[in-house]
Amino acid sequence: MPGTYEWSSSDAQACSASPDLPSQQHLALPRLFELLTRFGTFGALEGGGISRLAASEADGEARREFAAQLEAVGAQVGVDAVGNLHGRFELAGPDAPWVICGSHLDSQRGAGELDGTYGVLAGLCVAEAFVRAREAGAVFNSNLCVVDWCNEEGARFQPSMLGSAVYAGKATEEFALSRQDQDGLSLGDALGRIGFSGAATLPPAPRAYVELHIEQGLLLEDAGMKLGVVRRNWGAIKQRLVFLGVQSHTGPTPMGERRDALLAASRVISALRQLADDLGTAASPLHTSVGRIQVDPNSPNTVAARVEIWVELRSADADILARARLALQGIAADAADQGHVRCECACEEVRPAGETSGKVGRWIEASANRLGTGLLSLDTVSGHDALNLLDVCDVGLIFVPSIGGITHHPDERTSNADLALGLRALADVLWSACTEPLATEEVKCS
Amino acid sequence: MPGTYEWSSSDAQACSASPDLPSQQHLALPRLFELLTRFGTFGALEGGGISRLAASEADGEARREFAAQLEAVGAQVGVDAVGNLHGRFELAGPDAPWVICGSHLDSQRGAGELDGTYGVLAGLCVAEAFVRAREAGAVFNSNLCVVDWCNEEGARFQPSMLGSAVYAGKATEEFALSRQDQDGLSLGDALGRIGFSGAATLPPAPRAYVELHIEQGLLLEDAGMKLGVVRRNWGAIKQRLVFLGVQSHTGPTPMGERRDALLAASRVISALRQLADDLGTAASPLHTSVGRIQVDPNSPNTVAARVEIWVELRSADADILARARLALQGIAADAADQGHVRCECACEEVRPAGETSGKVGRWIEASANRLGTGLLSLDTVSGHDALNLLDVCDVGLIFVPSIGGITHHPDERTSNADLALGLRALADVLWSACTEPLATEEVKCS
Repeated sequence: MPGTYEWSSSDAQACSASPDLPSQQHLALPRLFELLTRFGTFGALEGGGISRLAASEADGEARREFAAQLEAVGAQVGVDAVGNLHGRFELAGPDAPWVICGSHLDSQRGAGELDGTYGVLAGLCVAEAFVRAREAGAVFNSNLCVVDWCNEEGARFQPSMLGSAVYAGKATEEFALSRQDQDGLSLGDALGRIGFSGAATLPPAPRAYVELHIEQGLLLEDAGMKLGVVRRNWGAIKQRLVFLGVQSHTGPTPMGERRDALLAASRVISALRQLADDLGTAASPLHTSVGRIQVDPNSPNTVAARVEIWVELRSADADILARARLALQGIAADAADQGHVRCECACEEVRPAGETSGKVGRWIEASANRLGTGLLSLDTVSGHDALNLLDVCDVGLIFVPSIGGITHHPDERTSNADLALGLRALADVLWSACTEPLATEEVKCS
Repeated sequence: MPGTYEWSSSDAQACSASPDLPSQQHLALPRLFELLTRFGTFGALEGGGISRLAASEADGEARREFAAQLEAVGAQVGVDAVGNLHGRFELAGPDAPWVICGSHLDSQRGAGELDGTYGVLAGLCVAEAFVRAREAGAVFNSNLCVVDWCNEEGARFQPSMLGSAVYAGKATEEFALSRQDQDGLSLGDALGRIGFSGAATLPPAPRAYVELHIEQGLLLEDAGMKLGVVRRNWGAIKQRLVFLGVQSHTGPTPMGERRDALLAASRVISALRQLADDLGTAASPLHTSVGRIQVDPNSPNTVAARVEIWVELRSADADILARARLALQGIAADAADQGHVRCECACEEVRPAGETSGKVGRWIEASANRLGTGLLSLDTVSGHDALNLLDVCDVGLIFVPSIGGITHHPDERTSNADLALGLRALADVLWSACTEPLATEEVKCS
């Protein structure tokens, strides 16, 4: 049963405290809830929530609907080589610079309906409002492109955030398209199957990138705040470790002769939990996790020959992260020695901790002031496509609260008032981005 | 590339020390090697070894060939309701009692070619020899039935040894047929797909059951012996434990708020290895293992919501096993408490330790004497269909050496001379079983 986001008069009242800003005049808040309800049906699970893995049939349905909605409002719709679906709105003419906003329509297995989807649909609502504003005589200095980034979640194809990584030049098209799911199907082939292989490039060198997202944490809720701006992103080190043991019978093989890859992996998983307590501090926590494990042959009475685990280390403190990485090496080597198995690091992905700042941050502050709402500066621990774009252009990442901090779960929720406030903030920030006169150097660059 | 078992004159010489026993006169040793080579092609893997999961296409091919071979030598071939494929040889007439021999044609993933298959094909060779002996005038007092038990390995459908369990009245047909593989396909449907659903029952209340198998251990090799008889089987406790956590994002979710089912399971796997050292002794080792794990949603950046592990505890000492079971309860409860997850035991299978004895054991001793070979009394730790039949009739389980003790692995090997010796021993034991005059109470029972 998909969630239904119904917009009531009380919701409208809760949002009525805003001044009569130009960015808000053509914004249709109920439209967001109608879209959220509709998109909640794509990949809907019986007990609630959705499973809409990247490039799955359900993702294809959501993409087709999103493309249709973009076209209906006059966007030039395209898909690039790695499946990033986008709609270009030429608000300011063919030679004007571009502003990009968006997020992702793919989800984890058994996820909520807001993660990613909220940002994409809010971007669509803003574009619709801006098209109406332009028809009513508003003048824009930048164009707007709304994007659904491909494979943000990394639930089906690893690593995560592939589509935005290719756009940002951090991964090649070949690399992205050759990633395989657990059945050996490549991302390229999966995109082909749902009809979303393309060649329409996204606008290069945009003026700014703005993303609206639910917080996926408790900081806003705990602070009693409604709007957050990400000032700092945690660094992350993701490693895929492979343990190579020897397949044998769990019955007769003497304990001392076993080369048990699953045992070695389990020791690493247990030790990593301890590492979080040992290295993390209250001010700078270290988050460690293993969420995925692949065991071969995975038979009850056969000692595992090969086990692969996906390790994540995250911290805002680069020093803690470096020490955690070193400790992980030691933990894995010790577990391998103790179990007489081999351990290899098959893949490592490093996302440095960093600060977001610049003009988008200032636009967000100004919007919060105009909307009469407070603004909490916070960290993001989880990856977002926005982080990939930090090297490309000025980036802004806006958060609204998640009730109870629940995310990647069917119970993920945000109140209607907060969802509406996020949309209004996004519209106001994008209004600044698209109407503000360009600085001299920007005109040169465009 | 399947192994090729070629029979040479030197092999023949190595086996020539035997007296001219009636059981051996019609036995064609090269025939066994021809059959082993042929059956090594069904489910053959490129790098060597086989994957012939129960009721798979490859299993279907092996079954069809086995049925054809049985028919070619005049057997009445049938399949029972749970896929046990058997050939009845009425050597002594319709009213005579039955002797059953056999093993299984299914294998683990990436297994050797001998485990199970050797015993089935040796049984076929003996039946062929007995048919020829009868044509030459030999008189039999019992009939012989050769069986390929369904799903012995338990690699695809759990629990293992399903076919013999149903025959022995330890499991119902409904239970067996409703077991599902990891794709949700039931054993019943899988058997239907390969054309091995049947209704031909096996002979009930047989006089004896004899199984020939490779040792899957090092005891024979270490003792420099060539033939073993199982006097004792280890007890086994198999539990399927389910850990129920809460799905959340591995990024922002604070470590203290995670309910990580994979972490709890990993702690149990690590602790179980320690338990083997703590409770086992040199005289009575305790074997502990987890060979299979199922993780949901199994995504790199999602805390696992549900993890299932297949735990095995094995020992010849009933007291050690009972203490290990109790300790497992504590270990699982502690891991669940520590990780704030729930733990449930979804399924428990108990196979008591026991002694095998009786007349088949005496026949095996007499055969070893007649063949001029020593006989090592040993334990079996792994399950065998023979163990299921202990409650049904007198049972004999004969072992030949495994080179290096390697099993459940493509490198599993036994020398030609040892394979031939095992066949000759099986023939001689079955000769005793099928020609010995019946005791009075056996005549009444039959």
